[in-house]
Amino acid sequence: MTYEAGTYDVIVIGAGHAGVEAAYASAKRGANTLMLSLNLDMIAFMPCNPSVGGPAKGVVVREIDALGGLMGRVIDKTHIQMRMLNTGKGPAVRALRAQADKPLYVQEMKRLLENETNLTMRQGMVNELLIENGECKGVITETKAVYRAKAVVITTGTFMRGRVIIGDLSYESGPNNQRASVKLSEHLEQLGFELVRFKTGTPPRVNSHTIDYSKTEIQPGDEEPRAFSYETTEFITDQIPCWLTYTNEFTHKIIDENLGLSAMYSGMIKGTGPRYCPSIEDKVVRFNDKPRHQIFLEPEGRNTEEVYVQGLSTSLPEFVQHDMVRSIAGLENAEIMRAGYAIEYDAVVPTQLWPTLETKKIPGLFTAGQINGTSGYEEAAGQGIMAGINAASKALDKESVILDRSQAYIGVLIDDLVTKGTNEPYRLLTSRAEYRLLLRHDNADLRLTDIGYDIGLISEERYERFQEKKRLIEEEKKRLQKETVKPDDHVLSIMEEAGAARLKEPTKAYELLRRPEIKYDMIERITAPEKDLPMDVKEQVEIQVKYQGYIEKSNQQVDRMKKMEDKKIPEDIDYDAIGGIATEAREKLKKVRPLSVGQASRISGVNPADVSILLVYIEQGNIAKVSNE
Amino acid sequence: MTYEAGTYDVIVIGAGHAGVEAAYASAKRGANTLMLSLNLDMIAFMPCNPSVGGPAKGVVVREIDALGGLMGRVIDKTHIQMRMLNTGKGPAVRALRAQADKPLYVQEMKRLLENETNLTMRQGMVNELLIENGECKGVITETKAVYRAKAVVITTGTFMRGRVIIGDLSYESGPNNQRASVKLSEHLEQLGFELVRFKTGTPPRVNSHTIDYSKTEIQPGDEEPRAFSYETTEFITDQIPCWLTYTNEFTHKIIDENLGLSAMYSGMIKGTGPRYCPSIEDKVVRFNDKPRHQIFLEPEGRNTEEVYVQGLSTSLPEFVQHDMVRSIAGLENAEIMRAGYAIEYDAVVPTQLWPTLETKKIPGLFTAGQINGTSGYEEAAGQGIMAGINAASKALDKESVILDRSQAYIGVLIDDLVTKGTNEPYRLLTSRAEYRLLLRHDNADLRLTDIGYDIGLISEERYERFQEKKRLIEEEKKRLQKETVKPDDHVLSIMEEAGAARLKEPTKAYELLRRPEIKYDMIERITAPEKDLPMDVKEQVEIQVKYQGYIEKSNQQVDRMKKMEDKKIPEDIDYDAIGGIATEAREKLKKVRPLSVGQASRISGVNPADVSILLVYIEQGNIAKVSNE
Repeated sequence: MTYEAGTYDVIVIGAGHAGVEAAYASAKRGANTLMLSLNLDMIAFMPCNPSVGGPAKGVVVREIDALGGLMGRVIDKTHIQMRMLNTGKGPAVRALRAQADKPLYVQEMKRLLENETNLTMRQGMVNELLIENGECKGVITETKAVYRAKAVVITTGTFMRGRVIIGDLSYESGPNNQRASVKLSEHLEQLGFELVRFKTGTPPRVNSHTIDYSKTEIQPGDEEPRAFSYETTEFITDQIPCWLTYTNEFTHKIIDENLGLSAMYSGMIKGTGPRYCPSIEDKVVRFNDKPRHQIFLEPEGRNTEEVYVQGLSTSLPEFVQHDMVRSIAGLENAEIMRAGYAIEYDAVVPTQLWPTLETKKIPGLFTAGQINGTSGYEEAAGQGIMAGINAASKALDKESVILDRSQAYIGVLIDDLVTKGTNEPYRLLTSRAEYRLLLRHDNADLRLTDIGYDIGLISEERYERFQEKKRLIEEEKKRLQKETVKPDDHVLSIMEEAGAARLKEPTKAYELLRRPEIKYDMIERITAPEKDLPMDVKEQVEIQVKYQGYIEKSNQQVDRMKKMEDKKIPEDIDYDAIGGIATEAREKLKKVRPLSVGQASRISGVNPADVSILLVYIEQGNIAKVSNE
Repeated sequence: MTYEAGTYDVIVIGAGHAGVEAAYASAKRGANTLMLSLNLDMIAFMPCNPSVGGPAKGVVVREIDALGGLMGRVIDKTHIQMRMLNTGKGPAVRALRAQADKPLYVQEMKRLLENETNLTMRQGMVNELLIENGECKGVITETKAVYRAKAVVITTGTFMRGRVIIGDLSYESGPNNQRASVKLSEHLEQLGFELVRFKTGTPPRVNSHTIDYSKTEIQPGDEEPRAFSYETTEFITDQIPCWLTYTNEFTHKIIDENLGLSAMYSGMIKGTGPRYCPSIEDKVVRFNDKPRHQIFLEPEGRNTEEVYVQGLSTSLPEFVQHDMVRSIAGLENAEIMRAGYAIEYDAVVPTQLWPTLETKKIPGLFTAGQINGTSGYEEAAGQGIMAGINAASKALDKESVILDRSQAYIGVLIDDLVTKGTNEPYRLLTSRAEYRLLLRHDNADLRLTDIGYDIGLISEERYERFQEKKRLIEEEKKRLQKETVKPDDHVLSIMEEAGAARLKEPTKAYELLRRPEIKYDMIERITAPEKDLPMDVKEQVEIQVKYQGYIEKSNQQVDRMKKMEDKKIPEDIDYDAIGGIATEAREKLKKVRPLSVGQASRISGVNPADVSILLVYIEQGNIAKVSNE
């Protein structure tokens, strides 16, 4: 017999990286929010690698932060090392990556959430959704508690029908030996959702004292203080290094010889694994000409000797893991503390979602994170914040928020998922973003703070600081456009120092900065602004001026794209009534139900000819009927 | 197919409060030790109350520390509050209690163990023991790893066939939703061990922000710095208070009305619960004339808002817990973060153990902690350290260590368990110790440091400090015996101040200190030692002098007891061959197989007449054959 346990605006099921962002965003937006977790000691736990950020993913963390989310702030307070990647390359591929103190990250995230008004956290296992008139109106837990709400976000990660697999051992379990969620998965199936079986895995962890670091290469953090969050003002200076070593031919021989014992290859694992985060047995099989693979030794925190063997994800039996680890330079005597394992789980086919992350089948039901077929903490968190925002929108009758592909990596991620779906765990890559020069690490705040502020996730005080930054950038750019630099001795010596071509005639400072060899700090020495500018303003001025041409070109492409995105498709469109569209395109369009012609054009199987026919049909039809869910 | 995964001296199964002490003591003793845990993130996790110590238990923590164990040192570094209980009463019942920072306690314990030479920590589930020629020679895990050893200690706490129960919900689980250990329990049964079903439980946790503390009474920590460990030199001054409130008649009415829904009363729970840590439904039923029960609100750490509702342990359904909590002053709007639950588990009948905690049935196999039928972290830790010491003794062919009832509460605990058994979760109480005036909080080091040093758990440096302390105590006692106090004005005014009877004639300072009103600090003002003495030396001098009479009396009792304990019973004694012993006594003696006549005399059902017959039989027999396993 069920009982009424409370009414909320929004309920979030799960408290991993997607769940915490969803719950926090929803609560911050003003929705009375309940977050249900299977174990309150595992809030935002990292069951896999102890790091946050990296290419594309690091930009997502900044985007989450610009929208007002948590991940950036928490990792800034709890990292053991911070490093800017690709500093030698262009700004589009620069990315920040932090090594996390895992237990501290959990504690800090939990603490922030516990102190959040509008947010109730509770331990509980959801078995069923409460469906009324085809809409999701709450959840029912295993203790028969009925929690009612106007919107529900499911963020179950790898818990749904989770199975842990090591060699020929397999048992029902969530990650890190937590309880699996079985009934909710069955329930979603009964509701008609198409589920798919994915798998992911982790490598073994070893005791630091048993590593011979002298045989490895040190990977220190940056000396310059770095942060993900635009709110961070205190920086951690006491950093801990990681270490680099490699597999070798002997390692690969061990793997080859035991491939039949890998759950991956014995047929025991049915789920599809992540292409861009493969197991070591996958790497050895797929790249069998590579004599070695990188192995990073990453401490799991400041107060633990456990070291994560990044690059050695595996489902091979424990004894093979032992031999494999000990074949690697520096790990000859390493003691494995935890064996690596694979985990299989149920995911929802994401083409069943609107770009708001609401399911098409059940209004009021949202899904976010690994359940939508992605891999990675950042991909989960990016979806989480958007699902939280939109679930609160739904509950509070506010406008929903959809980021497009030119606004954010989060936009690319969600558009890819809901438009193209994915037949393997999806990982965000810079190559997935066609406007990656616009989606930079350095300008996430310029792209998204306005939205974060509008929806109530960014404080007044922070917004004022942000506007001041924007003003300073614009003023400095204007000043550089006015300021003329004459080729006097001072200027010529600075330019010579930089190895730049000799300046022949007076030139605007702005134009000078566009030259590849000229950095902003040289301009500053030639013509300084009245007041010294903050570092991030200088950086922004330099990038905006230097890459102006490329940025403009990207913006033109965006404009063309936007025109297609503006061509909305009526929700009640009858694709069967459109003559001339190819059969495959018609099927895909009916399945994905794109919101715009732009989205339609990105569906695989929908060809330019189909798009043209669709366009004509819509322009002849009644555009007034269009509504954007 | 199993595989050989390594050979150790000692293997410890489990890493709770018993397991960590066992593994650490074994490693420190010089045994190459493997500790297997189901989840390395839960090392020494406190699934129940966030506190360590209290009456009797606090003395155990000090005893563990005096022997060289971990609990005291770790809680000293990770508490949020420390309090000396019963300061107004005699030294025999004084006890220190600390409120723990739960996550920090886990991290600090893990860190210490990870840094221990001779100790390997590994995640793993033991399914079977390796038995060769009737002796325990290792373990086999679920991944088919065979670890060999000369001794194995099982410390599975409440994990063996654990079942969590809330109202009518019940599922297989260890504490805090960890994986239960099922196969090991079945295996022990197959080996012929008698198992018993016990249960314990925890109360709900609430969010601090939803408590109205103004309706409760503050329970601050002591201002004076306190520590459990004799090694602690840095004290935590920033303490966090607890809060006291009460149940009321309305709370009791809610419980009464829903008693049928309690798993405890519906017949769902088969296990026996702890008498001295009863559920709230038990308290209401058993003490139905009491209008209220104490409820302590205890923070679970410094960086969490979770608050433990001490006193409200329950297996009532979630919705009853909600009503119950909200009926209590200060908790009218409290939000439960985790519901309370009961947990049922398998325990080993402890009369199957020798006083070394080795099982009689399988040499080389030891059990310690909650698996032996106790409740409480301290009881577990106390057994853990002794099992670890003795397992290492076994493996390294050293002498085993048994503490007797006059040496330590740990001795009382283990003697009670192996001699009398227990038909409910056993909790240590001061009333269980017949020599409690000797088993004081203040003299644990004097009682046990020599042993800790002899077995290699106490460092040279610490032992020297300890000997210096002993020397100072003896010197000061001698000095006070020599020093004569004359009733001059200074002395008379000090005594008047203290409200003491007027001193009439010159008296030895020692005799003066024996008067109840006279404290050591007065003696110090009258006749100070050459150098100021450390606080603990002063305290010890005062207690030893003041309670000399009682202590001497206790020591005489101990001497009498020791005579009986010295009368060893040959291991191969044939009780059937002794005529005249009552049938019940004979059965019990055959079951318990006491090591001494003293132990025999404490077996319930063995009467003084039986003891006399036994004594005569042994004295006529061949005492040379006696060996103490």
